[in-house]
Amino acid sequence: MAKDINPPRGMRDFLPAEKAKREIVLGVIRGVYSSFGFQEVETPALENLDRLTSGQGGDNEKLAYRVMKRGAELDSALESLESSDQLADLGLRFDLTVPLTRFYATNRASLPSVFKAIQMGPVWRAERPQKGRYRQFIQCDIDIIGDDSVLAEIELLTASLAALDSIGLENSVIRVNHRLLLAEVLDGLGVSEADRSSAMIIIDKLDKIEISGVVTELTERFGEGVGNSAKTWLEGISTSSVPIVLEPLFEAVGSRLRFDPTLVRGMGYYTGTIFEIELPGTGSAIGGGGRYDGMVGRWLGTDVPAVGISIGFERVVELVEGAVLSAGVVLVLEDGSLECIKKGLSFQKELIAKGSLVRLEVRPKKLNILLDSLQSAGFSEFALVNSNTTVLELRAIGN
Amino acid sequence: MAKDINPPRGMRDFLPAEKAKREIVLGVIRGVYSSFGFQEVETPALENLDRLTSGQGGDNEKLAYRVMKRGAELDSALESLESSDQLADLGLRFDLTVPLTRFYATNRASLPSVFKAIQMGPVWRAERPQKGRYRQFIQCDIDIIGDDSVLAEIELLTASLAALDSIGLENSVIRVNHRLLLAEVLDGLGVSEADRSSAMIIIDKLDKIEISGVVTELTERFGEGVGNSAKTWLEGISTSSVPIVLEPLFEAVGSRLRFDPTLVRGMGYYTGTIFEIELPGTGSAIGGGGRYDGMVGRWLGTDVPAVGISIGFERVVELVEGAVLSAGVVLVLEDGSLECIKKGLSFQKELIAKGSLVRLEVRPKKLNILLDSLQSAGFSEFALVNSNTTVLELRAIGN
Repeated sequence: MAKDINPPRGMRDFLPAEKAKREIVLGVIRGVYSSFGFQEVETPALENLDRLTSGQGGDNEKLAYRVMKRGAELDSALESLESSDQLADLGLRFDLTVPLTRFYATNRASLPSVFKAIQMGPVWRAERPQKGRYRQFIQCDIDIIGDDSVLAEIELLTASLAALDSIGLENSVIRVNHRLLLAEVLDGLGVSEADRSSAMIIIDKLDKIEISGVVTELTERFGEGVGNSAKTWLEGISTSSVPIVLEPLFEAVGSRLRFDPTLVRGMGYYTGTIFEIELPGTGSAIGGGGRYDGMVGRWLGTDVPAVGISIGFERVVELVEGAVLSAGVVLVLEDGSLECIKKGLSFQKELIAKGSLVRLEVRPKKLNILLDSLQSAGFSEFALVNSNTTVLELRAIGN
Repeated sequence: MAKDINPPRGMRDFLPAEKAKREIVLGVIRGVYSSFGFQEVETPALENLDRLTSGQGGDNEKLAYRVMKRGAELDSALESLESSDQLADLGLRFDLTVPLTRFYATNRASLPSVFKAIQMGPVWRAERPQKGRYRQFIQCDIDIIGDDSVLAEIELLTASLAALDSIGLENSVIRVNHRLLLAEVLDGLGVSEADRSSAMIIIDKLDKIEISGVVTELTERFGEGVGNSAKTWLEGISTSSVPIVLEPLFEAVGSRLRFDPTLVRGMGYYTGTIFEIELPGTGSAIGGGGRYDGMVGRWLGTDVPAVGISIGFERVVELVEGAVLSAGVVLVLEDGSLECIKKGLSFQKELIAKGSLVRLEVRPKKLNILLDSLQSAGFSEFALVNSNTTVLELRAIGN
């Protein structure tokens, strides 16, 4: 009897065509980031759970998959069990930023004083699965640790735009704001420092609930004074004049930046500039990031400036068009005899040396069915081989 | 205060030089396997725990990291807790073979009738960490599912040897045996069918405890008759004459196969040919595999032939020699002014277009310290840039 044989809920298998596309897109992004002098590093998929959930990951910490203790440690935890927290000692990373700050703290002595990192890899979140949201997905991050100047932001955004260009997303733009500007605005509206983050959470919903919704929620939470000021602010917003603090960034990076005074970005750890990558017309963000100067210091006990940006690989790979499989050749052996196999191997070797992908198959009863299925897997030519073949006659599949 | 900031026990961070080497070696192996018509697929890191530990993974199942249930399911498991097994619903894969057979069963309708798979990715085992053994490590597997003929074995071994050649391990050889030959030998020694696997476990120790040790253990376990016959067998072994069942394989693949009648391979699921890749002089195996015709059928309820081979990536990447970082250029900005940054960005763009990796840095007080650290990270040239620079003067770092 066949059993239930799906991958775990919210997780995916990748078949050859999709896997090939993903590897190609990853390779192109990696190549562009490398060309800008960033260097790839890798951390384990698992981190010690107490570090992973020490408050740096915001709401995502709640979504961390927890890995159970083993052996004697598990037994002893079970004996005096008060909370399920005692049962787990490791967690799967839910982003690449928390592990990177841990990595930097661990390896600082071996890294250049300004560390420009590439990270590309899977992260896991125990979210409710929904269309376009997965429980295992890939993030592509670049970060610069150790540079508090605007050069860091300039390099991140220049490299990101080049990476997006290289995969055909030349229309993408980056919306930019600064947490200090947001704080100033909130001061002006009469929101106290203690209430800033609740107010930001409401403003962050602007795309969904529009100005009227934001004004209503701010009024409910902070009174009519704040609500009215917010209405005036939101209706009068001009995105055309870039504030002084962002001018160097806009001047150096150029026309694809948009100042957005209402951009919030969810994470609590951002301390300066914040970014969101957008492909006009597609509605949702395809990446984002910001400056998080306080985070590395939590491991080291000494402050280290840091800024990063993440491309949402799963969104981006859906937007990239075009088949990307290399064309391959199928050598169809007339029979499975050793002579025929050896002839096939020898032709295969020749063709591989010339750069082809070459697959051997013994001729089945229905050759066309075989060739059709291989054509959809990216093979475009075939040749018949028997033990007397001296010259291959390559023919196009499907003609 | 700095906290304890290491990766979890038995797991590793990869710094830029090591990460670059790993990606290059993976890319070369992937390229060779693709050229032989294999196609890469990917499964999630997690599988449903009951499937992962249903008896197909042998002893490795005990080493699976278990992921705790979440939310209401965890609460309800805790309420009526009888065994810690109830607390986990997912597990991290401990090899790529069990997930591949699940993948094949899930996606069979979309795959060619003979499916030639590449898989490269991390697996996790909660082993006692020791030199050269890690709790997260990469495996590189190729498998052919749906072909019961020797052509499958021929293709696997031909492609594996080509992959090993391409990373400079041209001396590697593959030891080959067949489970049916082992069964015949054990019959001849007087070991009953029921005792076969215990006898195989003893013979598998031949490398470590030599003939005398194996004979002693067989005598202790099965009596003097078996011990004496085994002594005669082991002392008289000839590896030069290849048995008929393996002749086509040896004839087609050629001189780098070695018949080894004592080769066992641990896994219980092998049903036919078994392989072990060896680099003479290094002592231990760098890969292995075999035919496992019964395994896919366990999911599907119908038998499907399958054979696979795995390159031990962690062993192999240690053996590959040579620095592999691309050479890069450092553009040192004389100051952090916007004019200077814009000049740097423009030279960077030019050099990247010509294929260079180009890193920007603002000139620090001690330029030599910066350049030294970047040299060890793979940068070989630098140039100074100020706002008046019109032509770059590239100089070698370290001269």
